[in-house]
Amino acid sequence: MKQPQSRVKAVEWRGDACHLLDQTQIPGREAYLECRHYREVVSAIRCLAVRGAPAIGVAGAFAVVLAAQAACDQKDPQGFFEEALTEIREARPTAVNLSWAVERMRGVAQSTGQDPKALLDEARALHEQDIQFNLDIARYGLELFDRKISVGTYCNTGDLATGGIGTAFGLIHGAYLNDRIKHVYTCETRPVLQGLRLTAWELYKNEIPFTAICDNMAASLMAAGRIEAIFLGADRIAANGDAANKIGTYALAVAAKYHGIPFYVVAPSSTFDLSLASGTEIPIEQRDAKEILAVLGENTPPEPWPVYNPAFDVTPHALITGIVCERGILRAPYVESIRSALG
Amino acid sequence: MKQPQSRVKAVEWRGDACHLLDQTQIPGREAYLECRHYREVVSAIRCLAVRGAPAIGVAGAFAVVLAAQAACDQKDPQGFFEEALTEIREARPTAVNLSWAVERMRGVAQSTGQDPKALLDEARALHEQDIQFNLDIARYGLELFDRKISVGTYCNTGDLATGGIGTAFGLIHGAYLNDRIKHVYTCETRPVLQGLRLTAWELYKNEIPFTAICDNMAASLMAAGRIEAIFLGADRIAANGDAANKIGTYALAVAAKYHGIPFYVVAPSSTFDLSLASGTEIPIEQRDAKEILAVLGENTPPEPWPVYNPAFDVTPHALITGIVCERGILRAPYVESIRSALG
Repeated sequence: MKQPQSRVKAVEWRGDACHLLDQTQIPGREAYLECRHYREVVSAIRCLAVRGAPAIGVAGAFAVVLAAQAACDQKDPQGFFEEALTEIREARPTAVNLSWAVERMRGVAQSTGQDPKALLDEARALHEQDIQFNLDIARYGLELFDRKISVGTYCNTGDLATGGIGTAFGLIHGAYLNDRIKHVYTCETRPVLQGLRLTAWELYKNEIPFTAICDNMAASLMAAGRIEAIFLGADRIAANGDAANKIGTYALAVAAKYHGIPFYVVAPSSTFDLSLASGTEIPIEQRDAKEILAVLGENTPPEPWPVYNPAFDVTPHALITGIVCERGILRAPYVESIRSALG
Repeated sequence: MKQPQSRVKAVEWRGDACHLLDQTQIPGREAYLECRHYREVVSAIRCLAVRGAPAIGVAGAFAVVLAAQAACDQKDPQGFFEEALTEIREARPTAVNLSWAVERMRGVAQSTGQDPKALLDEARALHEQDIQFNLDIARYGLELFDRKISVGTYCNTGDLATGGIGTAFGLIHGAYLNDRIKHVYTCETRPVLQGLRLTAWELYKNEIPFTAICDNMAASLMAAGRIEAIFLGADRIAANGDAANKIGTYALAVAAKYHGIPFYVVAPSSTFDLSLASGTEIPIEQRDAKEILAVLGENTPPEPWPVYNPAFDVTPHALITGIVCERGILRAPYVESIRSALG
């Protein structure tokens, strides 16, 4: 089996700082943010300079290290650290990987007296684990192809969204290298265009044949037999398999169901939230209207249009053919398969 | 019944010129193009300064008048006129209203020896007829509401897309004035954003409560019960009821079917092409990749991404709850209902 390589590091600890690729500037420019204070990481997460559920988990872990370092100089180191952890955790509400990473770091902080060195070791281990999980996912993913097909993907789930080769993107990349994929359609993913900017950039860099499309074109490509399966990521998966992911995922799932096309959610175990019985309990982040209206540029309306801008939607498990995680391929009934893989 | 009023003229003959509102500048600016040569109209149609199937039909008719005027100064007036008609007809390929209007004008040209005055009278009559058809459509449309609901619409079908109050938009406007509509969701309609720029502008001007959304959000609003019916236009309807309309229409139709939501196509009889047995025969215009990539602005890729940009898709009649035209509400089986209304 040929194994994909990661071409770019979205998140990395180098020297004494957390380096983040500023994804708002991709594909035009590869610029890095050097974060030496945890608040710089928090603001990078909020403005989507770093995004993708697993990547913000890793970035959050490094932010905890920076918070522990900053706490040393405070009058009340523990109070400061606790407040910082809350701030990091709440930088974005939907992806559970962020709070999962913060809680894991909190455990180490408690057992080591907030030792920055121990925390850095833990954050690095968490990062390494994410890299390994991506590779495991890509290996399991190969089992899903019985012939060479064209696939569709959504938002961004590659190097940029994770610590490693990516979740759905890593799977697609691996399948391409092993001759199971002909062509990839990347949906642009309005309003922030992660599919047009980031996934297209990763497909381009990895020399995978692709076409960028508007989100509204995917259904007709399914009808024409040009999209034969969908692979995409998740930000939080409930105990029953309902999956929150980038807004527009649900529409693709409905179209896939209508056309009898397999629809796979690809995510590491840190994306599951077994404390939630179903997807209706997942908090959905609402973002600024500007993200949608910015597309008008100079051609602005008399006053800003009323706009609805949820960052995510929830796809019910009944529309999901399978969930690929580093422990294997989970299938319905999900309550059982998820519990036995992760419980 | 309260009747909607038209607030703006997308196409109008004034003095000796065809005036077209330059829709590429809406909502930022209301600027008009004064076309005195048929080629100016052709180029306005091509660059989408005037768009919407009925509106380009009317603009095409006025272009034929300008062509007849220009022909008078030519050595071979008839040859010049014939070539001009072909050029006008082919300015855009999918909407049949354009070729329908050109053929109707050709008939008058043949019987009057290309008399510009007779042709202007005919173009004006065609324009007046479009205005009347819109009003008839809005009246029939009221029958579709048994309670006050929230609806979704797509692309632009209002004043800007027609000679009058619009097709689907006119129907929605009439239903709102008569207390049958609570709220309108306008899908932005990538890549050219007719829904975010033009329909939002018309909803705003007419003080109809609305929210603009990305195309990928409509399905989840249907699932949440916030979009209870879809009304949109068509560019060409085949004899069996299959309807070509703006790319993304098919995805909405699939989502409406899945959620059990009525999906209405609204178009005047000039939109039907009974020479085509089914939608598979409708030619689909492919447009420039720039329309999609322009959204990246300064943030451009290393080289232009490969892009797929069909302007339209075809919705099979099985997904259409009803077709509202100026002759009434047509329902399945469409071969019979269309033949009896239009044959």
